[in-house]
Amino acid sequence: MRKITGRISMNHGNGGVYMQKLISDVFMRFFNDELIGNQSDAAVLNTGSGAIAYTTDSFVIEPLFFPGGNIGSLAVCGTLNDLAVSGAKPAFLSVGFIIEEGFKISELTRIVRSMAIEAEKAGARIVTGDTKVVNAGKCDKLFINTSGIGVLDEKHIPLSSGKYIKPGDKILLNGPPGEHGMAILQARKLFDFKTNIISDCTNLYPLVKQILNISDRVHFMRDATRGGVATVINEIARKCNTGIEIDEAFLPVNNEVAALCELLGFDPLYIANEGKVIVVADAMDAELILTAMRQTKCGKNAAIIGEITADHPGKAVLKTRSGGKRIIDELLGDQLPRIC
Amino acid sequence: MRKITGRISMNHGNGGVYMQKLISDVFMRFFNDELIGNQSDAAVLNTGSGAIAYTTDSFVIEPLFFPGGNIGSLAVCGTLNDLAVSGAKPAFLSVGFIIEEGFKISELTRIVRSMAIEAEKAGARIVTGDTKVVNAGKCDKLFINTSGIGVLDEKHIPLSSGKYIKPGDKILLNGPPGEHGMAILQARKLFDFKTNIISDCTNLYPLVKQILNISDRVHFMRDATRGGVATVINEIARKCNTGIEIDEAFLPVNNEVAALCELLGFDPLYIANEGKVIVVADAMDAELILTAMRQTKCGKNAAIIGEITADHPGKAVLKTRSGGKRIIDELLGDQLPRIC
Repeated sequence: MRKITGRISMNHGNGGVYMQKLISDVFMRFFNDELIGNQSDAAVLNTGSGAIAYTTDSFVIEPLFFPGGNIGSLAVCGTLNDLAVSGAKPAFLSVGFIIEEGFKISELTRIVRSMAIEAEKAGARIVTGDTKVVNAGKCDKLFINTSGIGVLDEKHIPLSSGKYIKPGDKILLNGPPGEHGMAILQARKLFDFKTNIISDCTNLYPLVKQILNISDRVHFMRDATRGGVATVINEIARKCNTGIEIDEAFLPVNNEVAALCELLGFDPLYIANEGKVIVVADAMDAELILTAMRQTKCGKNAAIIGEITADHPGKAVLKTRSGGKRIIDELLGDQLPRIC
Repeated sequence: MRKITGRISMNHGNGGVYMQKLISDVFMRFFNDELIGNQSDAAVLNTGSGAIAYTTDSFVIEPLFFPGGNIGSLAVCGTLNDLAVSGAKPAFLSVGFIIEEGFKISELTRIVRSMAIEAEKAGARIVTGDTKVVNAGKCDKLFINTSGIGVLDEKHIPLSSGKYIKPGDKILLNGPPGEHGMAILQARKLFDFKTNIISDCTNLYPLVKQILNISDRVHFMRDATRGGVATVINEIARKCNTGIEIDEAFLPVNNEVAALCELLGFDPLYIANEGKVIVVADAMDAELILTAMRQTKCGKNAAIIGEITADHPGKAVLKTRSGGKRIIDELLGDQLPRIC
């Protein structure tokens, strides 16, 4: 693909191939620190006296309120999760608000309240913040940035580097993909019909902690947000130059998400989640981890969905229910912008 | 003042009284952590193995490019400065971009390059980031959030709490107020005439380091950004319940800023800066600190501008050139939004 030029398009923000190009051609060209170069969910830092994980995310979701949460709970959970999948205990959060003039203070209050509740549930402290107001029409109601610091214990392994991944490893997923994206689509009220789909937006740290307590053979973790499960799977294949095989028959399914996706021509594997984690672990511990995942609230539909293969390095393949195989392509275009 | 209700106005973002109300009535109501409650530039955290300073800022400046910098250099310097005035050595930065569809990649590249240059000059590493794209018309070209982590040495004193401030302490300022705000106003091209005013946007850490190296009698530091010098002065008076007397004759002046302010009816004390720091120190060390400040590039016009008084607690007073006295009010309305 040739070097990026011209103007920013919506695809530059979708988590897929175009966004990768923007990152590599513009951001990495100048921000060439090895830590940001890892492109993991959080950077692992040494402050001179101990290791911490550090991450940031901006949230521009539309609409601000949706079944299962709002931009505030999403912003806190999103950052908690980036820390959690790095193996860090979420400790401190920053919050930055960009508010459009005319925004209702009652709505802002509801959102701020949700943020405080989610942070408190997770035992994380909101310790620093910033507020900017822009004129009417200069932003879409409210954008929130959260950054976070997590504490790593001494024996932590770098869960996002992927360098421990090897053929034979099992791939686990804690529940059906696509619930967040489809909940947002519903909240946009573009259709007449109504479903009961609720966003999976949640703090994954309790699940991650359970997994890391029970096994020291976890080789990789990543929460599957923008670009969905397919994007994480492809990232592993590309980064580790390994093959991946996902078994469609084992993928957890939310029937309403599946039906809505079929109706609209979407593939749930590419739809955003806000409470789903991909875990890669040694086959020896896979069942143990699965049992641990199922004991948690957000892991009760967990499954072993596939494995790392020596075959077809760099490619992710789906074994379909009908026995066929097809490549899980990287995401190019995206019909669902602004889901986070 | 009664509890905040209704809708967000531009004044809720100006750093003055209305913003304080928004913070206390909405944010502090739910984010009631003692650390964020301090409302200092950066929170000082203990991660279990050492103290760090942590801060965040979003930048919505308009226009994106201005004499002396752009939104990128501003975003990096702004966060470096919040860390520096907490007595911390800036170490790690996060960057979050919210980009409007259609934004020129060439402009984004210039901005990203500036960020990398400023961070490198300061010896700080950009280690984690995030990119969101919103549809055309849903944000104003580009917003940037930066958060930062600074490292504190063992003997650091809490420079932003103000609890060491006492009557007789001297107040120092490293140069003439108002350059940033007036440079932005010029860049908006609302007037026919042209000045040579350049934003003072710079990294204050070298100056701060010089000061802290030479004196252990520094009692307070704060960079004077939104709301200007007047807002910091008022904050000290209110927080420490102490009086403040500023001597107009000693205030550093940029003649072009003064002329433009007079023409437009502004007071430079209320205009934003991005490279100005207020230092409060024991009178015994004031001259020493002044000399040290003047040896740095951004402190060559430094001055002792006033002192902390036991009289009129909670109020800041300006001794005018003509020998009169007037109260330096807290900022209410603001004619210059989006200067950072």
